[in-house]
Parts: sequence; C-alpha cells; structure tokens
Amino acid sequence: MEIWGDRISGNCLKVQWIADRLGLQHRWIDVDILAGDTRSPAFLAMNPAGQVPLVRWPDGRTLAQSNAILLHLAEGSALIPADAFTRAKMLEWLFWEQYSHEPAVAVARFRVLYQGQSPDDLDPALLAKCAAALTRLEAGVADGFLVGRRLSLADVALVAYTRMAGDAGLSLDPFPAIRRWIGLVEAELGLPPYR
Amino acid sequence: MEIWGDRISGNCLKVQWIADRLGLQHRWIDVDILAGDTRSPAFLAMNPAGQVPLVRWPDGRTLAQSNAILLHLAEGSALIPADAFTRAKMLEWLFWEQYSHEPAVAVARFRVLYQGQSPDDLDPALLAKCAAALTRLEAGVADGFLVGRRLSLADVALVAYTRMAGDAGLSLDPFPAIRRWIGLVEAELGLPPYR
Repeated sequence: MEIWGDRISGNCLKVQWIADRLGLQHRWIDVDILAGDTRSPAFLAMNPAGQVPLVRWPDGRTLAQSNAILLHLAEGSALIPADAFTRAKMLEWLFWEQYSHEPAVAVARFRVLYQGQSPDDLDPALLAKCAAALTRLEAGVADGFLVGRRLSLADVALVAYTRMAGDAGLSLDPFPAIRRWIGLVEAELGLPPYR
Repeated sequence: MEIWGDRISGNCLKVQWIADRLGLQHRWIDVDILAGDTRSPAFLAMNPAGQVPLVRWPDGRTLAQSNAILLHLAEGSALIPADAFTRAKMLEWLFWEQYSHEPAVAVARFRVLYQGQSPDDLDPALLAKCAAALTRLEAGVADGFLVGRRLSLADVALVAYTRMAGDAGLSLDPFPAIRRWIGLVEAELGLPPYR
C-alpha cells in the first residue's frame, strides 16, 4: 500500500498515524503540494480531485479523502466504536471536521505558514470560523475523548490540525479541555507534543 | 424520530428522502434558517454547531451532519455497498461532497436565491470551484451511478444540490452525464424533476 501525501498536511499525517497504529505496512510517497505536484497530469490521473492524501494499492485501486481512508483502513478495529449510535456520533464529528473545522483552522494555518500572511491580517470572518470551531470542540472534549470514552477516528481526525492551531497564531489558552485532550490523543498515538 | 430541517436545504431534503425510501416513520419539524432558528438558544442546546438537519429520537439522543445521518439511518440497507472497497469509495464521495461540492454549488445557490446576488456577480473563485466540482462529478457518473452500479448514499448526497445547480445560474448543458444521472437518481427516489 502506498500513501501519497505531504507532511505539511494534517490530513495526510492522520492517515500515516492510523497506518502506523494498525501496523499496516505501507510506503510513503512524498507529494509537494506547494510545488504543484497534486496538479500534475500524472497525479490527476490517480485522483481527479487533485488532493492528497491518496492511498494506492498494488492492483492500482486508489482511495482519496482522508476521513474515508481512515474509515476504510480502521474497519473492524477498536478505533471505530462497535455501538451503532456511538459510531454515528463519530461520523458526525468526522463530517463536521471536514466542513467546519478544517476549512477554518487548516486554512488559517496555510495562509500564515505557507502564504506568508501575518496572523493579524487574517480575514476576520475566517478567524470567527476558527473561534466557533474551537469553541464547539472544547465542549466536545470536556470529558476527554470525543465519543465512547476511548480513542476513535474522531479524535485522530480532529487533533491533526487542532494541535497545529498555534501555527496560525490561534491561542489554545482559552481552551483548557482541548489542551488536555491533545495531550491525551498524542500520548495514545505516540506523538511528541507539536512544536 | 424527528427530523429538524429546512426544505430550502438540500442537506435536509436528502435525510427526508432516505427516511422515506427506508420507510422510517418520522415527524418533520420545520426550522427556518433564514429567520435565524438554528441560532436560537433552544436549537443550539440540541446542536451546538447550529446546523440542520438534525435528527432527534424520543429518548433525547440527537445526530447532526447530513451524511452521518444518512449512514446511520441506512446502515444494513442496500444503499450502503456490502463490498468493503466499494463502501470506501462511497465514503470518498460523501466526504468530497461536503468538502468540495456543497461549499461551492450550495453556497452559490444560497447567494443567488436567498441573498439576492445576480449569478453574474458571483465571486469568480466560487464559480471556479463550482465548475471544478461539476467537472469532477461528470467523470464520476459517466457510467451512471457513482459506485457499485446501483443507487447508494453517494448518489443521494450528491444529487441534492446538483439538481438545483440552475438556481445559482449554473448551466448543466456542458454535463450530459450529470443530466442523465440526475434523471436516474430522481426516478429511483421517486422525485419529480426539479423546477
């Protein structure tokens, strides 16, 4: 199995974390987003959406969308709750992450780290979306893990960019539950604290 | 089961279609997005993310995020492919829909229909996202249904706003496969053609 990804992307890193945790042998293939690799004809032939991460199997099958990849790789593991409703709540967080969290926090980080914007110059509407996403998440992790009292894909998906919030100049000081939860998830995944 | 939703929202309608198709008894509760209902304290107490659709069961449990709701309601039905990889591809489309299609096509429609913008005045960046999303979808439906040669949740999720593209002044004339596929999915769901 090949994981095509860029290590600057939390969406890509979360696929690697899950592959590592589940002991899935894989080869990481570096894709340089900033250099335009995801827009090359060769890459678009593999994923017409022009996005990483992308997983490719030896028989040529490919799978895109980070959270779809997580769900597929982790099927049958303890990272997906066995109870149907708990699993549904995990899915709720996974879709919320891609709709309301990543387009805020990851986009703000991208503008600061890779497009050279000052955090002070970020669009106020974008900052409001970041604040709303972090406030929502703070309530979600008040008791620790997001669902089922143990690590699930929801935690993995949401920690990816949340732990990098400082890159965008976003302070986690007002979010003590998030800070505790990041430590919890990083410990589960065997990750060192970010920066 | 209660479905809290606004019929102007494709995200809400797709939940109703699935509940109807699966014969799930439910009560529809109208939520007026434009009047600010999703921002009321009572609604935020049910869904802190302030979004519809929301499903609520008699015991008080709630579930948000349209595609998470679809996956939960349709579990075990023929709308979710039995084959693991085909199911993963369906999930890829569901996440792509919320990340790359809905924020383009549904947002353009909202600006025109409900915020009174002229289609000619839409942000060119938004229009480019719409064109990219429809082009990607056109390739996906070249052979009919998105995955597994039969109707799945991927078709239901993606048809919701695609069939309304004209509301945003987006022409489907350049997308013959999408037009055929809309007819196919509408027929499966027992929906009349949109407008």
